[in-house]
Amino acid sequence: MRLRLDLSYDGTDFRGWATQPGLRTVQGEVERAIGTVLRLEAPPQLTCAGRTDAGVHARGQVAHVDLDDVDPSTLERRLRRLLPSDIALRSLSVAPPGFDARFAAVERRYVYRICDAPAGPDPLVRGTVVAWRRPLDVDAMNAAGAHLLGEHDFAAFCRRREGATTIRTLLELSTVRSGDLVETTVRADAFCHSMVRALMGALVAVGEGRFEPAWSAEVLAHAVRDTRVTVMPAHGLVLEQVTYPDDGGLAARAVASRRRRDEPPATSRT
Amino acid sequence: MRLRLDLSYDGTDFRGWATQPGLRTVQGEVERAIGTVLRLEAPPQLTCAGRTDAGVHARGQVAHVDLDDVDPSTLERRLRRLLPSDIALRSLSVAPPGFDARFAAVERRYVYRICDAPAGPDPLVRGTVVAWRRPLDVDAMNAAGAHLLGEHDFAAFCRRREGATTIRTLLELSTVRSGDLVETTVRADAFCHSMVRALMGALVAVGEGRFEPAWSAEVLAHAVRDTRVTVMPAHGLVLEQVTYPDDGGLAARAVASRRRRDEPPATSRT
Repeated sequence: MRLRLDLSYDGTDFRGWATQPGLRTVQGEVERAIGTVLRLEAPPQLTCAGRTDAGVHARGQVAHVDLDDVDPSTLERRLRRLLPSDIALRSLSVAPPGFDARFAAVERRYVYRICDAPAGPDPLVRGTVVAWRRPLDVDAMNAAGAHLLGEHDFAAFCRRREGATTIRTLLELSTVRSGDLVETTVRADAFCHSMVRALMGALVAVGEGRFEPAWSAEVLAHAVRDTRVTVMPAHGLVLEQVTYPDDGGLAARAVASRRRRDEPPATSRT
Repeated sequence: MRLRLDLSYDGTDFRGWATQPGLRTVQGEVERAIGTVLRLEAPPQLTCAGRTDAGVHARGQVAHVDLDDVDPSTLERRLRRLLPSDIALRSLSVAPPGFDARFAAVERRYVYRICDAPAGPDPLVRGTVVAWRRPLDVDAMNAAGAHLLGEHDFAAFCRRREGATTIRTLLELSTVRSGDLVETTVRADAFCHSMVRALMGALVAVGEGRFEPAWSAEVLAHAVRDTRVTVMPAHGLVLEQVTYPDDGGLAARAVASRRRRDEPPATSRT
């Protein structure tokens, strides 16, 4: 039985999502809590939609776990009692056929928040808003963002990983100001490692006036990691939402994937 | 020269506003920072509009301080560099004639935030939102609040202090829900000690269905501290705004108060 977990967390005190021996991670805490509630010998393995880095927050993280024979509402209630206050289990439910938190996700939405007031951000939100001393030009940031939309090789904005593709489809990179708060929404089919924070580094460089908006297109075209693009601090970033096909779409996807597995890999050597 | 300071702070790590020897307080931190910047032998004394309790936050605290011969914009800039990240100096300016952060204030506005979702509050705002396990009926809370509006002796909702009046004019006590977030706005000319959190205790008791809305009027009428009224946790409370007369009003007030001081206290024994 596959269960879907919707999770929010304050990333401040976590070394990111992914389990690492001896470190406090979101995945580690949730897996351990499930293991404790169900008295499993070894904790089960969670799969998530977006493996957030150390210090990155989430309001709309989605994960799945495969478990035998559990009552979802009892498990949900008992997990809520056990999880630390910096993780909230928003809901736990039986996943529809074909659901996979990682591979069925069609879109991830992140928001990055900066305050450029001379007084700094409201202390009550300083854990999720980055203080920036120089004023940002939001129009320039939007012009820079527009150059990056669409399907591209985003290698210039990614930390390289052996064998992993850096081709992604960027659906939105738009910034709005309300008072001193500068909020950038970033949507894509998927992201490579540190990509959102590197995109923000490019936008902020343009917003400060260090480069013209068209510079972002130049950086993209080079397709190699550019040292002029800084990776912005983790605490301004929140994974807000993950989008999946509706249940019909998921079921069709499951059938298609079964069919692919059953066919001989005819094209594998061409 | 009198200066006005507009301050925001995260109350979590403070033992309230008021200076207490050996404890970390907002007043203590700000006074010490001013003393350091100006190299004063003893820190100056701040006066504030609302002496918030331990753990209570502020977005719109106002204070004044009397200093000789300082340049406000230099002092503002240097204080911002020196203050800890849980205090923000929103602005520092020369106060208009007749200004007194405490005695010239005509209205204080607080907001109290509760989340009654089974999953608990969003972890990213858990420092300012109180988790409540039982669902709250906002209509009942508003009916209870309406009974308390106007000028009354609020002794039932105040921690008693020798010689201090408990007569106050409550201008607003209204609750709105947005999703799982229940926000109560409380406005009055002034508040006595722990009054906002005791009013919230009464509203929550009604919101849970433990008492009928009219019970709030009963409690008020008794005019003695009622043990059925709990004082709600500090971290849900934010001092949002303090209102002063405009500059003309402040100047007229200053003249009137000088005139009162000059006249013989003719009525003092009648």
